[in-house]
Amino acid sequence: MKFNINSRALEKILAKILPVIPAKTPAAQIENFLFQINENLLTVTATDLELFLQSSITVDATEDFEGLIPAKLFFDIIKSLPDAQLSFETTSGSKLKLKTDSGTYHVGYTENVDFPVIPSINYTKQFNLSGKTLKRALDQSIFAIGKEPLKAAMTGLLFDFTDEGLKFVATDGHKLVRFINKTVRFSEPEQIIVPEKAISILIKLINDDNVDIHYTSTNVHFKLGDISMISVLIAQKYPAYNSVIPLENENILKIDADPLLTAVKRMQVFANSNFQQVKMSVSEKVVELSTEDIDHGSSGCETVECEYIGSPMNIGFNTSFLFEVLNHLKNEKIVFRFDTPTRAAIIENTAAKEDEDLLMLLMPVRLNS
Amino acid sequence: MKFNINSRALEKILAKILPVIPAKTPAAQIENFLFQINENLLTVTATDLELFLQSSITVDATEDFEGLIPAKLFFDIIKSLPDAQLSFETTSGSKLKLKTDSGTYHVGYTENVDFPVIPSINYTKQFNLSGKTLKRALDQSIFAIGKEPLKAAMTGLLFDFTDEGLKFVATDGHKLVRFINKTVRFSEPEQIIVPEKAISILIKLINDDNVDIHYTSTNVHFKLGDISMISVLIAQKYPAYNSVIPLENENILKIDADPLLTAVKRMQVFANSNFQQVKMSVSEKVVELSTEDIDHGSSGCETVECEYIGSPMNIGFNTSFLFEVLNHLKNEKIVFRFDTPTRAAIIENTAAKEDEDLLMLLMPVRLNS
Repeated sequence: MKFNINSRALEKILAKILPVIPAKTPAAQIENFLFQINENLLTVTATDLELFLQSSITVDATEDFEGLIPAKLFFDIIKSLPDAQLSFETTSGSKLKLKTDSGTYHVGYTENVDFPVIPSINYTKQFNLSGKTLKRALDQSIFAIGKEPLKAAMTGLLFDFTDEGLKFVATDGHKLVRFINKTVRFSEPEQIIVPEKAISILIKLINDDNVDIHYTSTNVHFKLGDISMISVLIAQKYPAYNSVIPLENENILKIDADPLLTAVKRMQVFANSNFQQVKMSVSEKVVELSTEDIDHGSSGCETVECEYIGSPMNIGFNTSFLFEVLNHLKNEKIVFRFDTPTRAAIIENTAAKEDEDLLMLLMPVRLNS
Repeated sequence: MKFNINSRALEKILAKILPVIPAKTPAAQIENFLFQINENLLTVTATDLELFLQSSITVDATEDFEGLIPAKLFFDIIKSLPDAQLSFETTSGSKLKLKTDSGTYHVGYTENVDFPVIPSINYTKQFNLSGKTLKRALDQSIFAIGKEPLKAAMTGLLFDFTDEGLKFVATDGHKLVRFINKTVRFSEPEQIIVPEKAISILIKLINDDNVDIHYTSTNVHFKLGDISMISVLIAQKYPAYNSVIPLENENILKIDADPLLTAVKRMQVFANSNFQQVKMSVSEKVVELSTEDIDHGSSGCETVECEYIGSPMNIGFNTSFLFEVLNHLKNEKIVFRFDTPTRAAIIENTAAKEDEDLLMLLMPVRLNS
């Protein structure tokens, strides 16, 4: 079997699917790429058993081929080669021979006996989104996905299909993001939960092209040009997130996100690393941020201009969570909606776009003093 | 006590001396900066007990001050502040109060009871070098410094003061670098060994200004503008390096460093990670590089153009060491001088500069096949 391919084109394909392979795994076969040529279509597959990534490119091959190639080594090799046409050829002793103008290289492969098979699913539902829209939804919500394995449902991103739009929801119990995209609407309500790892890899794969999304109640398939991602869904019921979003928060703070963000960043330095607490004292024209680390005898206090209509408010937040929320609202004029210092605060951008709605929620912490 | 200072000016001082403080140390007092104000001169000192770094800046202080401030925390705080004039003030309860236009911060300090004292040495010898010259000497030699604590002398950089010039020598027994600077000559031969840590920090501190170097048989003091570095020397005899530099290597290979470097970089990928061996097969017009990893069934073979006058030569090297040597000769036309495949090879740049002489030596490895 022989075929030619440009080194950079092959590197690009491999780079996209390599991240799915875990650094350490007891299952040796998934440390390989499944390398297949079928009627001149080269398809490379990688998996961690739950998530499959597949990429294809047309080549002019003399015959079909299937083999397992050590993924990390093969990627390092292709990456190390100059930008040049590579000629591939199978040789005796289960080796792939690669040739360039100045070099000849061999890489061992093995027969495919036990590489995991992509689940064969009859996808019944389908829609598509522009890459830009999907990327924005994922970028804005991924940070709020939970990390505690015992709360399995919260370790994924909820796709809530409703007749108001597609709602992306992430929460870890301390913070919550709800991003509504109104360009797609669904007459039949349904919810699927996509694991965090799939989302984090997907974000890097998305470009401006449309993404086709096929799903059932157990699996989801994202098609991005020549790349396919197939993931199992988290088979759990997502918490009833609507009931935790307060509707009546009537104390309204308008403020620029950026100066508040840089002040919160400084509070992170001064705050005690165990408690990570910052106090927001809100009055008519000024927010005062303060924090203290009794262990190190350090403290910080800063003021940021604002407009506030409501009862005077002293409310505490986890500095890191507050920083993360603000960091996703950079360059925006934002609104905090408070109820009381012990109840959830809502944070929204004021210049909302027509087809979307972004809401963040942050639980306060009890102030020490 | 009160004084003002620009946040970025203070950050710059602290950033320069912070690297001396070890990440983990049982000696709690050296996790601090010694912060002193003496007749309007602010001096900040950091140490790891063997190496002292000190930086000074003039301020307009109301009185003298001395205290220990947690180094990492203080640096993080200053770095986090905006580019602005900071007003410092001592307050009750051993705190430094910092004020900017929008914020007030406190940092705890402690009295200086046991901060190590810089050894009081009567330096008898002195010379100076341009920053550029010294930086080049250190950059070219530091990678060859040994890492085995049992061979203490080789864990530092030799400054060999001779009447031919100042010779900087580093070796770990596998590779050796000798860089001669001929602009300074010494009538009285002497050798000092500066620890690797001092050299690696010094490289980052050097700018184009002259560096004043004072030394005795036990200590060295580098003065770079407002920064002082004082280090103990390694109190050992350096190996007789001249005796390992062959004078009669008569097989001469002329080659461009860059194509050879990129080929060796690829060989690193293909080589077995335990043996890291690359074979150079040298003939009249071509060097063939080859390597093999039997464990993974991978191998690589590449050719690079050259000019060679000598007996046909098959010589093995450690790929990483060969890569390091070539990486320090980038963009140069270089010469390999071989004797036999079991004896040291000399590598030099052909376009030597008038006032310097750079020689690298690499021990071969025995070829498996």
